[in-house]
Amino acid sequence: MRTISTCLSPELIHLHDTKGKIVVVVDIFRASSTMVTALSNGVSCIVPVEDLEQCRAYKNEGWKIAGERNGQQAEGFDLGNSPLAYSDGQLAGEKIAMTTTNGTRAISLVQNEASEVLIGAFLNINALINYLKEIQNDVLVFCAGWKGKFNIEDALFAGALSLGLGWEHDCDATMAMEAVFQQAGRDLEFFLQKASHAKRLQNYELEKDIAFCLGLNQYDTIVFLEEGLLKIK
Amino acid sequence: MRTISTCLSPELIHLHDTKGKIVVVVDIFRASSTMVTALSNGVSCIVPVEDLEQCRAYKNEGWKIAGERNGQQAEGFDLGNSPLAYSDGQLAGEKIAMTTTNGTRAISLVQNEASEVLIGAFLNINALINYLKEIQNDVLVFCAGWKGKFNIEDALFAGALSLGLGWEHDCDATMAMEAVFQQAGRDLEFFLQKASHAKRLQNYELEKDIAFCLGLNQYDTIVFLEEGLLKIK
Repeated sequence: MRTISTCLSPELIHLHDTKGKIVVVVDIFRASSTMVTALSNGVSCIVPVEDLEQCRAYKNEGWKIAGERNGQQAEGFDLGNSPLAYSDGQLAGEKIAMTTTNGTRAISLVQNEASEVLIGAFLNINALINYLKEIQNDVLVFCAGWKGKFNIEDALFAGALSLGLGWEHDCDATMAMEAVFQQAGRDLEFFLQKASHAKRLQNYELEKDIAFCLGLNQYDTIVFLEEGLLKIK
Repeated sequence: MRTISTCLSPELIHLHDTKGKIVVVVDIFRASSTMVTALSNGVSCIVPVEDLEQCRAYKNEGWKIAGERNGQQAEGFDLGNSPLAYSDGQLAGEKIAMTTTNGTRAISLVQNEASEVLIGAFLNINALINYLKEIQNDVLVFCAGWKGKFNIEDALFAGALSLGLGWEHDCDATMAMEAVFQQAGRDLEFFLQKASHAKRLQNYELEKDIAFCLGLNQYDTIVFLEEGLLKIK
């Protein structure tokens, strides 16, 4: 019988066995939401890279480069980490090299051991649930957090995904996040007003990004990692 | 204005600034519940020590020694980690050296920087809330977890304490645990039936311990660390 567990921070990933598991990497504000949006709007592939220098090197190879640090677009980069910049189809056919504060690091931490790495967002949560129900592997939801700390929006996603799957598990983190999601109710944006990362983004006037990232099931796509590249299945 | 934050695991404590804060160490199943119970029932002091050998050395000095590893009493020790063994006053006046899998380690991680280390349990939560309301320092709730992993019963306590204090904060972990506690409702034991550590203890036939540890406000005591010793204020 398959089961689900949740890792609440990159600092805890060493406590989890990722081998043979499908790892769903989540960074709701905003990397995973942006990845799902970009690929759902025609971007041909995304290479997640860990640092800004490595990302810049792709520029001369004909890639667009997307760089974010501490919530803001990095200097000299074509794109930042706002999903809205990727949602209008203008980047259709482009290849994008992307580095973010938390999300791309999380991917790099699990890509060697996992049977498959998927990118999770509220934007495609139902598609993900349906996909996972067809697969036989156990699932680990890996919350990217904020510089190692627990982030409530990523954890809420874990709860929502687990409730959607309805599998038995004995993971305390998953159990807690199911309760948080149930307590949050239907208005995630209202619930998250007090959350630390939402507040940070509000300071940068990114309220539109927040609302967008919390939109359920805008896309029917599954984003996965194949030989280091994020693509749509 | 004072605030509250929550550290969900010893593996995350380096991300928190403990300096000058009151740190409330929580290990509901069972170290912190046992410490509160013992001291509330006449034990004169407890020295929390990290390993079994160090603990054994106290034996010849006239201390009782309490040792638990992986949920069970360590061989050759006078006492284990069941709060019920400390609840009848038979240990009144005794000094106890204690080592547990998670709780005593958590204490050692914060004792140098914190302005004060308190021991938190559901058994004395209202007394703690009243005490903290009178103090001017910020509060960090430090969940001992299970071998580094998130434990839902410790986190529930963090939520209950924060709701009891009613202070503003921008800590995602605290916010999430408030939601979990609210979702759990009045019957903590029912809610926790699925929790991993409760299941572990059930395997050891420690259901009575679980029920006891979830009893609210059995004691009106504040347990604090003074020069390496846990005592009642």
